[in-house]
Amino acid sequence: MSDLLGVAVLGAGHMGADHIRRLDQVVSGARVAAVADPDTARAKEAVGGIDGVTVHAEAEAALDAGGVDAVLVASPGPAHEEALLAAFARGLPVLCEKPMVPDAAGALRVVEAEARLGRRLAQIGFMRRYDTEYRRLKALLDTGRLGRPLMLHCTHRNVASPPDFTSAMLVNSSVSHEIDAARWLLGEELTAVRVLRPRSSGGAPAGLVDPQFALFETERGALVDVEVFVNCGFGYQVRCEAVCEAGSARIGEDHGLRVARAGEDRTEVPQDYLVRFADAYDREVQAWVDATRQGRVTGPTAWDGYAVSAVAEAGVGSLETGERVGVELGPRPALYRA
Amino acid sequence: MSDLLGVAVLGAGHMGADHIRRLDQVVSGARVAAVADPDTARAKEAVGGIDGVTVHAEAEAALDAGGVDAVLVASPGPAHEEALLAAFARGLPVLCEKPMVPDAAGALRVVEAEARLGRRLAQIGFMRRYDTEYRRLKALLDTGRLGRPLMLHCTHRNVASPPDFTSAMLVNSSVSHEIDAARWLLGEELTAVRVLRPRSSGGAPAGLVDPQFALFETERGALVDVEVFVNCGFGYQVRCEAVCEAGSARIGEDHGLRVARAGEDRTEVPQDYLVRFADAYDREVQAWVDATRQGRVTGPTAWDGYAVSAVAEAGVGSLETGERVGVELGPRPALYRA
Amino acid sequence: MSDLLGVAVLGAGHMGADHIRRLDQVVSGARVAAVADPDTARAKEAVGGIDGVTVHAEAEAALDAGGVDAVLVASPGPAHEEALLAAFARGLPVLCEKPMVPDAAGALRVVEAEARLGRRLAQIGFMRRYDTEYRRLKALLDTGRLGRPLMLHCTHRNVASPPDFTSAMLVNSSVSHEIDAARWLLGEELTAVRVLRPRSSGGAPAGLVDPQFALFETERGALVDVEVFVNCGFGYQVRCEAVCEAGSARIGEDHGLRVARAGEDRTEVPQDYLVRFADAYDREVQAWVDATRQGRVTGPTAWDGYAVSAVAEAGVGSLETGERVGVELGPRPALYRA
Amino acid sequence: MSDLLGVAVLGAGHMGADHIRRLDQVVSGARVAAVADPDTARAKEAVGGIDGVTVHAEAEAALDAGGVDAVLVASPGPAHEEALLAAFARGLPVLCEKPMVPDAAGALRVVEAEARLGRRLAQIGFMRRYDTEYRRLKALLDTGRLGRPLMLHCTHRNVASPPDFTSAMLVNSSVSHEIDAARWLLGEELTAVRVLRPRSSGGAPAGLVDPQFALFETERGALVDVEVFVNCGFGYQVRCEAVCEAGSARIGEDHGLRVARAGEDRTEVPQDYLVRFADAYDREVQAWVDATRQGRVTGPTAWDGYAVSAVAEAGVGSLETGERVGVELGPRPALYRA
Repeated sequence: MSDLLGVAVLGAGHMGADHIRRLDQVVSGARVAAVADPDTARAKEAVGGIDGVTVHAEAEAALDAGGVDAVLVASPGPAHEEALLAAFARGLPVLCEKPMVPDAAGALRVVEAEARLGRRLAQIGFMRRYDTEYRRLKALLDTGRLGRPLMLHCTHRNVASPPDFTSAMLVNSSVSHEIDAARWLLGEELTAVRVLRPRSSGGAPAGLVDPQFALFETERGALVDVEVFVNCGFGYQVRCEAVCEAGSARIGEDHGLRVARAGEDRTEVPQDYLVRFADAYDREVQAWVDATRQGRVTGPTAWDGYAVSAVAEAGVGSLETGERVGVELGPRPALYRA
Repeated sequence: MSDLLGVAVLGAGHMGADHIRRLDQVVSGARVAAVADPDTARAKEAVGGIDGVTVHAEAEAALDAGGVDAVLVASPGPAHEEALLAAFARGLPVLCEKPMVPDAAGALRVVEAEARLGRRLAQIGFMRRYDTEYRRLKALLDTGRLGRPLMLHCTHRNVASPPDFTSAMLVNSSVSHEIDAARWLLGEELTAVRVLRPRSSGGAPAGLVDPQFALFETERGALVDVEVFVNCGFGYQVRCEAVCEAGSARIGEDHGLRVARAGEDRTEVPQDYLVRFADAYDREVQAWVDATRQGRVTGPTAWDGYAVSAVAEAGVGSLETGERVGVELGPRPALYRA
Repeated sequence: MSDLLGVAVLGAGHMGADHIRRLDQVVSGARVAAVADPDTARAKEAVGGIDGVTVHAEAEAALDAGGVDAVLVASPGPAHEEALLAAFARGLPVLCEKPMVPDAAGALRVVEAEARLGRRLAQIGFMRRYDTEYRRLKALLDTGRLGRPLMLHCTHRNVASPPDFTSAMLVNSSVSHEIDAARWLLGEELTAVRVLRPRSSGGAPAGLVDPQFALFETERGALVDVEVFVNCGFGYQVRCEAVCEAGSARIGEDHGLRVARAGEDRTEVPQDYLVRFADAYDREVQAWVDATRQGRVTGPTAWDGYAVSAVAEAGVGSLETGERVGVELGPRPALYRA
Repeated sequence: MSDLLGVAVLGAGHMGADHIRRLDQVVSGARVAAVADPDTARAKEAVGGIDGVTVHAEAEAALDAGGVDAVLVASPGPAHEEALLAAFARGLPVLCEKPMVPDAAGALRVVEAEARLGRRLAQIGFMRRYDTEYRRLKALLDTGRLGRPLMLHCTHRNVASPPDFTSAMLVNSSVSHEIDAARWLLGEELTAVRVLRPRSSGGAPAGLVDPQFALFETERGALVDVEVFVNCGFGYQVRCEAVCEAGSARIGEDHGLRVARAGEDRTEVPQDYLVRFADAYDREVQAWVDATRQGRVTGPTAWDGYAVSAVAEAGVGSLETGERVGVELGPRPALYRA
């Protein structure tokens, strides 16, 4: 493990630039080797003064650049399928931001391609699995001390949605985090979904169905509900309560600093997911770098990426009708069985 | 207001005995004048050493006993309709425990009977409206500072269900509290209901569908969800979060005493509703006594009792099918318009 | 117990008026029989429309009025000694607001007078002993599950001090509550006191030493510290943490309603002791009425009143010098031994 | 910044081994170049399979080893003075664990030596300044929104003390963290100290004065109290409340995971400082590596190390007598003025 892992970063937008900074300044054992973005000026700005990084307009050029040992995909979702297949073709380990592939059919093609390789190369960026609170909750559930989980109550709130955020994106961009987290915490697939529409907030842009309330059923009969509210106005708040046979555990409510002032006792609510999950992103990338340098691939799989896309797609369908929509997954390749 | 209000208590079971104690020892301005229970031995035991109380096997005999100015109905639900009509016939003010009348048709007959009288005599025992936390939440919502409410997330958990508790009773006995609370907090009627079935807990009696997850729609489009779990094993826990356009408010999570010990920092969860809502019951009965002595009737109305029965009845229907069931209320008499 | 207890209330100021209201409207088993205040107009206003109450300028006249069975002393502290002795002379049970007698010498005279009677007539108004949280803390300590208490950390904060509040009053009016609470929770006397002066707040009136930090030693070596800050600006906050050999328990931090709004998650801090301790006052007076009607005297004793006055007096001495001042109590009459 | 910083780690005990792991696996921009420990077998075990690290019995040999750019001192406190002076003689930047030098006289010699150099080389390991909660508290105080701080209430609890822990070490090892934190949070020196002795816990080793209660005065009149309890039995708990003119802020009470089970609602208390402050250690070392690679020295200074030693020394004196002991610092060299 003496050499640093040379990473090609695809995409130099908000997320890509943050990963470039992380690889350069936070994570040990890696270096940024190449960056690709159609907007090469943006890519150069994200690289800043880091030595020895080549900048490219095309993703494949970055993969083929000198010193590239692995790939971090932070380009827009529609570009992911091609990037993943290109990495697979070169045998390069790849950390791919979520959504792995926005549509379930494309996601399944990625799964099948990796299954044909017969070995894992892809880790998908469901970073909540690396958050300290989620990990403690998962560890507690896995002990069985609370009995079987029966329900998950989830909340996912943003201060305000970005421009051009659509009603479908509450499901396939925001709730997709809870879809993966629920699968991971419960250790089973989601089999059906309903998306209900409470009245929309006057604080949401006209026409946006916000908040929404999604309900998921699982293979073994657990029920998962998710409030998603992307214009809640007061903070970025992610909570999860697991209701089990012998107790209930919840995360996401406590904060470190309490202030009593002017008749109230307050805790600050973080305003942004990069604040709330900063440590989770750091741990995720560090874990990926560490495993990759040891020739291993760990973390969320392409199958996870596919399953989340399939459930989210069913959820968007339910958002139209309010009816229950079943989820049918393709056969699970042996590569992804525990 | 110099004379004490003489109260006839109908029913001397768990709840009736508690109300007899309350009228005798806690509440000011009232005295127990008569008690009726088919089991007169039980009635005598509940009366204990209180002076000047007559004991009867028949409810009507108690209503006609000397010194009776008002009635508190704590007999089983199926006896309520007859008791209420008997009180109406005598012009006696009556505080009736919930459910007012278990079936919607019977509840509507009570509404119509009181409407024919042209004045209110009945107050229904939805005691959460007298709980300090609920009142603070209601007061906050009424200020409008948080904008319109969009969703209520409710939890209703009991340590263990009594013997003979049925799956339908989770809806029409337990959730009926949330049905009234939601109507009261939001100031609007519930128009449809779905009751979903997560897998049942191994801690619940065989055959009991427990927990359940109920969803209510309101006239103006708010969504109310209720987890009801009557064999949760760890405590009596009633929580409510109101998610509004400009903020969220929640009650039911804090307790007074925190203990750090053996690696954990704990707060006690009350084990029983008579503990959690002790003050609410006291305030409810005190408010009823005070108003009655002034010749007024306040608090939840027979219409509230009817609306809750109608929604609960629809909920029991949905429990069978899992489908959305609409709620159709009869016309609202002028007596019950604000 | 069929007759109502007729109570003479001495003093019709803020506290006296509140007790008149409480006896009339909240507490069961009692009635206001007479009220005395040098300002008879104020007394009449406090009585309002309550039937059958006589109003007097002189305390003794009220004690001798018809229908008086017991006395509630809510006059200013300097009048208490005379009032207590007058009640003793008539054999009347008396609930006396704190301070029992402001100076230790006068308090000792009251103790000696009651000891000569050979039976208890006085209950002193340390109402925190009736607060639900304090009682839970006391009950927990008494189980011994946390081992012996080693330290108490106390906080006593007011939004703003009343006009004419002096530096000594932080000790002998405010901290006197913690003095009694510490004695009661620990079950032992306080033997020495230091009062330290942090820099004073710019929010306090000029010349007032505020906040102060008091330290008490107990017979068996526990240490009690109290922050008293009567111009803290943000709320009325009373907290207590008991640090024991096997764990720590604390009260006073939780509240029922939490609101997330505008980047913060808040709980309301009560602004006034009549809000924070409303239930404690109600329970205190109810307990007094109930015991008195049964011919018993319970609750804090005249000895408690004396011990608190003696410790507070030592504390005021220490406030001058910052040095440790020992507390010497007179001999404890047999009447007050457990 | 393209080359990795080569670090010589002095001391391969519990703390030294943890820093070796951190430099190798967590921190970016650094590598372990040399390790020194009199027990070279222990040093080799701590190095494990890391490539290119030389192991030495003598500290100076490690400083002179190839590829050493900077020094991390994690040897026992008595060895620190010599190690710091050796690093200064070689012009090597040095991160020195606390205590900088256990006795104030030795600490002052280090200050004077660095002052003679005329530039900073030393950063002292007061890692709480890198803890997220402490930083948020400091940032809040620095805004002035809460007015001037008047008091700090601190708690420092360990599950159990290590073997051979002495009564003096509660002050000069445990409380020294609070001494530095108070100076840093308040921005002023501590001028006097009292250490009081509550009765000792039956859970503490015989003869150990535990808990202790320390009181510090500051230059501008703030009061700092610290409960230190190193055999509290239930967890590692570090809390701090800053009481200011217009509000109060506190840290250290909240945790991420809450579990309701068996009648209680619990949060886990961490058991160890390496758990509670894991992120703080990581940030501290990363900040040191980053600054060093840029040719800068930031973080706590040798003056801070000296001031803490001087206050702790006075505290140990007060522990003997219980009396107030003043703290006299030597003149502050210009190098350490803001």
